[in-house]
Amino acid sequence: MTYKLTISYDGTNYHGWQRQKNGITIQEIMETVLSSMFGAETAVTGCSRTDAGVHAKIYVCSFCGDTTIPCDKIPFVLNTMLPPDIRAYKCETADDDFNARFKTVTKAYEYKIVNASVADPLQRNFAWHYPVLLDVEKMQQAAQVICGRHDFAAFCAAGSKVKTTVRTVTELSVEKSGNVITVRAAADGFLYNMVRIIVGTLVYVGNGKLSVTDIDNLIEMKDRRKMGITAPPQGLSLVEVNYE
Amino acid sequence: MTYKLTISYDGTNYHGWQRQKNGITIQEIMETVLSSMFGAETAVTGCSRTDAGVHAKIYVCSFCGDTTIPCDKIPFVLNTMLPPDIRAYKCETADDDFNARFKTVTKAYEYKIVNASVADPLQRNFAWHYPVLLDVEKMQQAAQVICGRHDFAAFCAAGSKVKTTVRTVTELSVEKSGNVITVRAAADGFLYNMVRIIVGTLVYVGNGKLSVTDIDNLIEMKDRRKMGITAPPQGLSLVEVNYE
Repeated sequence: MTYKLTISYDGTNYHGWQRQKNGITIQEIMETVLSSMFGAETAVTGCSRTDAGVHAKIYVCSFCGDTTIPCDKIPFVLNTMLPPDIRAYKCETADDDFNARFKTVTKAYEYKIVNASVADPLQRNFAWHYPVLLDVEKMQQAAQVICGRHDFAAFCAAGSKVKTTVRTVTELSVEKSGNVITVRAAADGFLYNMVRIIVGTLVYVGNGKLSVTDIDNLIEMKDRRKMGITAPPQGLSLVEVNYE
Repeated sequence: MTYKLTISYDGTNYHGWQRQKNGITIQEIMETVLSSMFGAETAVTGCSRTDAGVHAKIYVCSFCGDTTIPCDKIPFVLNTMLPPDIRAYKCETADDDFNARFKTVTKAYEYKIVNASVADPLQRNFAWHYPVLLDVEKMQQAAQVICGRHDFAAFCAAGSKVKTTVRTVTELSVEKSGNVITVRAAADGFLYNMVRIIVGTLVYVGNGKLSVTDIDNLIEMKDRRKMGITAPPQGLSLVEVNYE
């Protein structure tokens, strides 16, 4: 049986989703717990390779296995075995060819910036503290330029190998509430570090290092080095994953 | 010189505000850092004895000392020495007799409950996960009964020594947004564990273990054991402290 499992996690204490030698990852935890539950080695495929420190309000993963546990009880059983910073919400059976990574149609991320002279200790693991006052209106104008179908090569971390760097960003909003700026980005797919480079670039527009009119040309130039810095991971959360 | 210092902290990793032998506390950290900065042992008085795991968006403390550092630069210097889960926001000089504990006029606390079948891993240190659906309207009605000037002996942890258990609760609101219930309580003073017992009692009304009409009688009976449980600490944050 192929399963589609929806989870949520606080990424603070993990080296990202993907299994690696140098630190504990969410994929490793999920595979260990599911293998123990199913009594057989169980490989888990995730919808996104979130980096160390990145969070997921919603995260979808897929795996194959056989169990007598009713599908809708699987989250409950998993939650008795998972650490408290990972929770399982929903488990559904899926088509045999379902793959949480390759069958996604759209995903959405949120990025939080605490724009205040002093950091908020209660949000230190969930936001980027940026002490210089940012011009939110200019950030919103730049977001309008970035939104749409483009070659996003300039927003892709160096060294990543993909067939095409063309993506369609369907939503890119910048909202401020109190001293918290929230950037929300939805697309048919994201390149490696793309949201964090978009946020770093919007912040460079907000602090005056780049102008709104620069952005169009910089996208054309396809040069990562012309864009803003890569925003730190802890402000980023995956918030939506959609399938056909 | 007497100083009034405003800080904020994430209480997750501390054994509360007040210095103790068995674990690290916020008071101990503040006294260590200020003593080092002032080059003399510095005692710090806090506005509230928050328990282990309780947070403060706003917390006021007072201390005496002499330094050549301009008053408004003290938070900046402190933040280079403090751990990231404690931040200093504002420092002002105060009257010689200023005392952060005894000069408070009103304080306000917020308590967050995640009312959903599965816990939210991103809020696990900042909210009480309560899986049974609560009747918010009934909780609001009970809050109206508790609000006002009463003898709050029934809402005071056993064994606490105070001259009077009469307090005036000026605000007690219950609001739900998504699956998060926020209880906000403002008063001229709070007894030991009072907010957490009020929240536990409101939850007992919300789940039907107590009725709104019970509350009036139970306040009269002044018996802690008749009220709801003490809500766990991590949902509680001090959010406002006012002085004359």
